[in-house]
Amino acid sequence: MKGMNLNHFIEQIPLFAGLIDTQIQLLLAIVEKRKYQRGKVIFTEGETATGLYVLYTGRVKIYKLSSEGKEQILHIFGPGEPFGEVAVFTGVQFPAYAEALEGSEALFFPRKRFVELITRDPSMAMNMLAMLSKRLRYFTQLVENLSLKEVPQRLAAYLLVLDNSKDKENTVELDIAKGQLASLLGTIPETLSRILNKMSIQGYIEVEGRQIRLIDRKSLESISMGEKLLM
Amino acid sequence: MKGMNLNHFIEQIPLFAGLIDTQIQLLLAIVEKRKYQRGKVIFTEGETATGLYVLYTGRVKIYKLSSEGKEQILHIFGPGEPFGEVAVFTGVQFPAYAEALEGSEALFFPRKRFVELITRDPSMAMNMLAMLSKRLRYFTQLVENLSLKEVPQRLAAYLLVLDNSKDKENTVELDIAKGQLASLLGTIPETLSRILNKMSIQGYIEVEGRQIRLIDRKSLESISMGEKLLM
Repeated sequence: MKGMNLNHFIEQIPLFAGLIDTQIQLLLAIVEKRKYQRGKVIFTEGETATGLYVLYTGRVKIYKLSSEGKEQILHIFGPGEPFGEVAVFTGVQFPAYAEALEGSEALFFPRKRFVELITRDPSMAMNMLAMLSKRLRYFTQLVENLSLKEVPQRLAAYLLVLDNSKDKENTVELDIAKGQLASLLGTIPETLSRILNKMSIQGYIEVEGRQIRLIDRKSLESISMGEKLLM
Repeated sequence: MKGMNLNHFIEQIPLFAGLIDTQIQLLLAIVEKRKYQRGKVIFTEGETATGLYVLYTGRVKIYKLSSEGKEQILHIFGPGEPFGEVAVFTGVQFPAYAEALEGSEALFFPRKRFVELITRDPSMAMNMLAMLSKRLRYFTQLVENLSLKEVPQRLAAYLLVLDNSKDKENTVELDIAKGQLASLLGTIPETLSRILNKMSIQGYIEVEGRQIRLIDRKSLESISMGEKLLM
């Protein structure tokens, strides 16, 4: 009965959601269920990442310690969420501490046996790559939808500020990389490109390499004040 | 010279950004550069996905055709962006059409040779899984940051509406799955959990399974009106 539950649970972990049944069975054969009492440290910063953890029950906090020993919490994870997986895939050390916030159980997939599975059955890796790609696609879309109201506003404000600080009016030169600008505006480069593209099509700006000419300052000002939405 | 550029370009494709130099060389050995004139169809819906495309120059639109032949654009991609990759990893048919919007070049990685590379060197798959996991982590955080202002507002409004439609006051029962509720509110289940958690810690609600008791209606109302932020 518990086995059935575990099977079902593993199928629903996003990373494994694209696997076929025989591949889930192979994972079930290598998984270890580990129990932690409240306050128990699961792994420490600098420890070699020997396996992938997925929280089964309870809650886990991921944190770093400052040089003065002060704790800085990075994440708190709940059931179904993987942790430390980037380090496991890369095969490096864990970059932070993990500690059980309450009585918790985690599924542990040993790295070595995981690599063996992929070696024997590369389609397993392909299915996992497919799932992660699919989720990334979904997230990209979600970030774009969430960004579309506020990012144009912040971008317009940024362009106007940049323009006012220059001698040559109405033409600004982007002085930072696009990735950095995207981060500054709270979005991703793909969305930033699409917003610049929309602003060009609407005739508010003209983009030529790193130079941006402000054609319709009035509209940019309205967008920057949140009075006008970019369509 | 052109080879150098291609090398550098491939390294910067997010999926390949975690690969070591010898692995990039193996990719360079299997990649084909394909040119498309404006209007050229790159692949059609239902066609078997025989390889992974990454746009090198130009722009590509991804679209579906309705039964009446009407075009519905799903995405427009620019240089550096992969397309059709989910289908390629799964090894199924492309779910949509791809067409060059202008003169474009794409890098094509044949699926068969790609699988051979992974089979010979599983660490390549691990590195790609690491990169995608890392990006997903980043995106999860970004979605959370972008959601934190508006999602609590929408959630509070949803809970109050649900409560008003019930006989038993101050207790609502979530009648849809958490994933669906997250979608409805424009976020992901992980962020929804964190927001519910915050609302509980602040004493606004009490969650017990699917039942949510509204403890502090006044605060929920202020949040739903956007007058109060969830801290």
